[in-house]
Amino acid sequence: MTTTTEVDDSMRNGVDTATLFATLDAVKQAPEAAKFQFRAHNQWQSGTHNRGTIADYFGVGEERTHERTFVFDADHPAVLVGQDHGPTPVEFVLHALAACLTAGLANIAAARNIKLTEVRSTVTGDIDLNGILGLDPEVRNGYEQIIVRFTIKGDAPADKLRELLEQSRARSAVYDVITNGVPVTIEVDAA
Amino acid sequence: MTTTTEVDDSMRNGVDTATLFATLDAVKQAPEAAKFQFRAHNQWQSGTHNRGTIADYFGVGEERTHERTFVFDADHPAVLVGQDHGPTPVEFVLHALAACLTAGLANIAAARNIKLTEVRSTVTGDIDLNGILGLDPEVRNGYEQIIVRFTIKGDAPADKLRELLEQSRARSAVYDVITNGVPVTIEVDAA
Repeated sequence: MTTTTEVDDSMRNGVDTATLFATLDAVKQAPEAAKFQFRAHNQWQSGTHNRGTIADYFGVGEERTHERTFVFDADHPAVLVGQDHGPTPVEFVLHALAACLTAGLANIAAARNIKLTEVRSTVTGDIDLNGILGLDPEVRNGYEQIIVRFTIKGDAPADKLRELLEQSRARSAVYDVITNGVPVTIEVDAA
Repeated sequence: MTTTTEVDDSMRNGVDTATLFATLDAVKQAPEAAKFQFRAHNQWQSGTHNRGTIADYFGVGEERTHERTFVFDADHPAVLVGQDHGPTPVEFVLHALAACLTAGLANIAAARNIKLTEVRSTVTGDIDLNGILGLDPEVRNGYEQIIVRFTIKGDAPADKLRELLEQSRARSAVYDVITNGVPVTIEVDAA
C-alpha cells in the first residue's frame, strides 16, 4: 500500500510531480537553463500546400531534438482555392491555444493534488476574409475574436476546477502570445 | 501549344488562378461569404499530452468539414517533464506562421505571373521559461521575439521575389494575430 501511494503521489494525472518540482528547483538555481529557442521549418509543396517539420530546439544550455521529427501539412480547403491536404494555418493557432491551456491545467492540478478525470475543449476563431483578400481596408487580416470553451471533470469542487484553468491561463505561453502579441522579424534570401 | 499555355496560365505554382480570381469577384458581390469561423477541439490524454482534432468550420454561409479529420498530438519533451508525444504548443504557433506566409506567397506569385521553384523557411522563437514557471515576474510567459528566415527561388529578379513575401506579410492572418494580438474569451463548464 505504501509503495502504491507513493507512486500515485508522484504521478498524479500522468504528471511526474517529483520531477516537476525538481525542475523548478534546478531552474531557481540556474535561471539560464530556462532560456529556450523553439523552431519550425517549412517547405512549400504546391499552391497553398506546404509542409512543416518540428524537430530541433535549444534548451537547458544545449541543442536538443525531439524523440522524432513531427511533420504537419498545411493547406486551404477547396472553398479557399486549395486542396485540403491539411488544416489552414489559422487553425493550427487555435490548436496551439487549446494544447497550451490543457497541458498547464494538468500540471497545476497535479501540483494541487487534484485528480482530473476529463478535460475537453473547443476553441473557435471568427475571421472575416475580406481582410486578407484586400477587399475591405476596415477589416483586419487575423481573427476578430477567439473563444475557448472547456469542460473539466475531477475530484475537486467546481470552483477549484475553475481555478485550475484560471491559473493555467495566467501562465500560458500561447495565451500570452495570442492576446499580447510578439515582435516578428522577417529576413529573406531571394535568388 | 495553345492548350498547354492555357493550362500553365491558370495553374501557376499549383494555384488555380482562374478560381482564385473568380472567388475574389464572388466575395466582392457577397461580402458575407467571407465570414468564417475556424475551430479546434482538444482532449486531454495524460500529463502534458493532449490531442487536438481539426475538422469542422463555417464559411461561405454554411457549416463545412475538411475532407478528413486532422489529428495532432501535443506534449512536452522529457526535459520539460513530458513524454514527447508531440511538439510543444508554442512550436505549433511557429509552424502556423511559416505556413501562412508560404501559402500567401504562392498565391501572390501566381497572381503576378511569377513561377516559384523553391520556398523554404525556418521560424525561431525565443522564450525564457522563467515566465511560465512563475520564477521571475519580469519575464513574460510567451515568446520574447520571433524571427522568420525565408529562402525564395523563382523566375523573377530577387527584388520581385522579396516583394512577394512583403505582400504576403501585409495580408497574413497569422502574422496579424501574432504581432497584434486577438481578444480571447475563456468559458468553463466544471463538475
